[in-house]
Amino acid sequence: MPDSEITLCTRLGIVHPIIQAPMGGGASSPQLVAAVSNAGGLGSLAAAYLSPQQIRDGIAEVRRLTDKSFNVNLFAGGYSGEDGAGATDASTMLAILRRHHLALGMPPPELPSALADPFPAQFDAILEARVPIFSFTFGIPAAPDLAKLKRQGALVIGTATTVDEACRLAAAGVDAVVAQGSEAGAHRGTFAGPFEMAMIGTMALVPQIVDTVPALPVIASGGIMDGRGIVAARALGAAAVQMGTAFLLCDEAGIPEAYKTLLVHAREDETKITRAFSGRPARGVVNSFMREVEHAGAAAIPPFPLQNALTRAIRNAAAQAGDVERLSLWAGQGLRLARRLPAAELVRRLVLENDATVGRLTATGN
Amino acid sequence: MPDSEITLCTRLGIVHPIIQAPMGGGASSPQLVAAVSNAGGLGSLAAAYLSPQQIRDGIAEVRRLTDKSFNVNLFAGGYSGEDGAGATDASTMLAILRRHHLALGMPPPELPSALADPFPAQFDAILEARVPIFSFTFGIPAAPDLAKLKRQGALVIGTATTVDEACRLAAAGVDAVVAQGSEAGAHRGTFAGPFEMAMIGTMALVPQIVDTVPALPVIASGGIMDGRGIVAARALGAAAVQMGTAFLLCDEAGIPEAYKTLLVHAREDETKITRAFSGRPARGVVNSFMREVEHAGAAAIPPFPLQNALTRAIRNAAAQAGDVERLSLWAGQGLRLARRLPAAELVRRLVLENDATVGRLTATGN
Repeated sequence: MPDSEITLCTRLGIVHPIIQAPMGGGASSPQLVAAVSNAGGLGSLAAAYLSPQQIRDGIAEVRRLTDKSFNVNLFAGGYSGEDGAGATDASTMLAILRRHHLALGMPPPELPSALADPFPAQFDAILEARVPIFSFTFGIPAAPDLAKLKRQGALVIGTATTVDEACRLAAAGVDAVVAQGSEAGAHRGTFAGPFEMAMIGTMALVPQIVDTVPALPVIASGGIMDGRGIVAARALGAAAVQMGTAFLLCDEAGIPEAYKTLLVHAREDETKITRAFSGRPARGVVNSFMREVEHAGAAAIPPFPLQNALTRAIRNAAAQAGDVERLSLWAGQGLRLARRLPAAELVRRLVLENDATVGRLTATGN
Repeated sequence: MPDSEITLCTRLGIVHPIIQAPMGGGASSPQLVAAVSNAGGLGSLAAAYLSPQQIRDGIAEVRRLTDKSFNVNLFAGGYSGEDGAGATDASTMLAILRRHHLALGMPPPELPSALADPFPAQFDAILEARVPIFSFTFGIPAAPDLAKLKRQGALVIGTATTVDEACRLAAAGVDAVVAQGSEAGAHRGTFAGPFEMAMIGTMALVPQIVDTVPALPVIASGGIMDGRGIVAARALGAAAVQMGTAFLLCDEAGIPEAYKTLLVHAREDETKITRAFSGRPARGVVNSFMREVEHAGAAAIPPFPLQNALTRAIRNAAAQAGDVERLSLWAGQGLRLARRLPAAELVRRLVLENDATVGRLTATGN
């Protein structure tokens, strides 16, 4: 490995430059996080939708399962302050959701009265747990918060979807930046400009960030599914990769079996960026709930976090029932390459494939 | 190089697996095509907007400048049959264009009465010239046409933006397929489905096509700008790369100086897919003409080729005047990495960078 990769791996406390992406909805379970870290990669716990107590419990569970390094991720920003008392007319959305509640045998949806940003209390739980690595998306935490982490010796990783966002993160003093290409599944990390203009493919995004902020280690994400993708990202100048969809079919990933089965048969041209589930743009496989909500028009979809709160009951019920037409089926554009394997076996194969790919590139002396 | 790359290079008659993308509007001038081919890559002449006589002249000029292999490209499909007598109400568009005609001192725009598909006559000119390589986009030529090329010994290259399109091209018997990732500048090649669902990033698209159609050599395109991108594409399984934006600032590229200067300062988050110029989705740097036309709404923009015909006079005048606010500023998302160099020097550097990147990946034994 080149020096930049070795340096980042050493700082992250890992053997292989492979980070399992934080994935909400229980996908990146403590079991998945620990399995990846035990295999020499870096597991990431998605804490953005967890209460402080759930964060404490999740971190404790990870630590019970591994003594290796791991990462915890939060949404730092993105709270519009929008709630049931806000400016949005949610009546169209409530009418749509009411039909689904009825079909699922649930009481009708109600507008929440207050949706406070959970970040401060979540962040306190993370500080208290003294995690080795903290990553974030949707913005940049306040400087005093980042300073507290650094005083603990934690490494801090931000998320950028443009060169400009990477520059802002570098100025804030992060230790590394995830360059999230447009291929990536789930939420777009965009925080400085309209997300539509920040749909930069990984192939273009990574080298432009590397060249503009040469001192900042870049972690490539978006469309990286196997050893070929890892070598491609490293060739572009990334010091490591972050992979989500590739780990989504792992035995330890806490998503419904029906979701995994659907992904096995899904095509790369069946995903879409949608605001239907959370109010923030995110990539997932198109299903009937997404189609129905989008048909109502963009203006009918309340912003995050209100839409997220409004659809939660339906998503939870759908997860319980394995109802893939009402679940948020987050997935990246590389989904055909996802494999059903234990996480440790996947990491092992990724490393072998990396080596084989480098070998192929040098096969006859080029 | 691995065997698959050597085989494709041999068949294409080139030394380096680097194809300069066909670029309309004179960008891929005979001078650029010949310079790339003379440097060991493959130059491509964009013939879709040329008359049969211009095609004959262009090919003759390329042959005057090089005895090496080269490629000629056409639009094979995409003709909606829409013209001034068609179903589209072009009145909103005509009103917009009239203001620009007035500002440019030109007579008001008129609806063309007939817009016949130029492909048959263009194709005959290409057959007559007996070109070594023919590539196409927007669809698949009829089987008898492809058979005529093959009887001449020409190699045939199609363009795919999804795995499904690559399968269709393989079934049609093409010799190689360009996998056009969402990063790519100018027109989307999508022909089998809505283009919005076919915006697959290069990192995800290439390996999924490679795995689904293993016998078909894949030429990666979209966001590839330097040797790092070339090695990345090769790692993903591509047998060659096609690069457009990277060659756009070359001395030989026949675009207005003002366009080149603008690209030097443009950012990766300033391009957009638009139908404003041709009626077909294409990626370019946002300018005031694009904004104005899009503001009128998608329904106000006639389909290709009518919109293309309607905006031609404005684009030609803008090219003459170096007016970047009215030109179609086609560019891919990797634009920050474009370099102002003679094409031969660019190819030379790409090859050196390729080798340096492979060297970096193997630096300390990994």
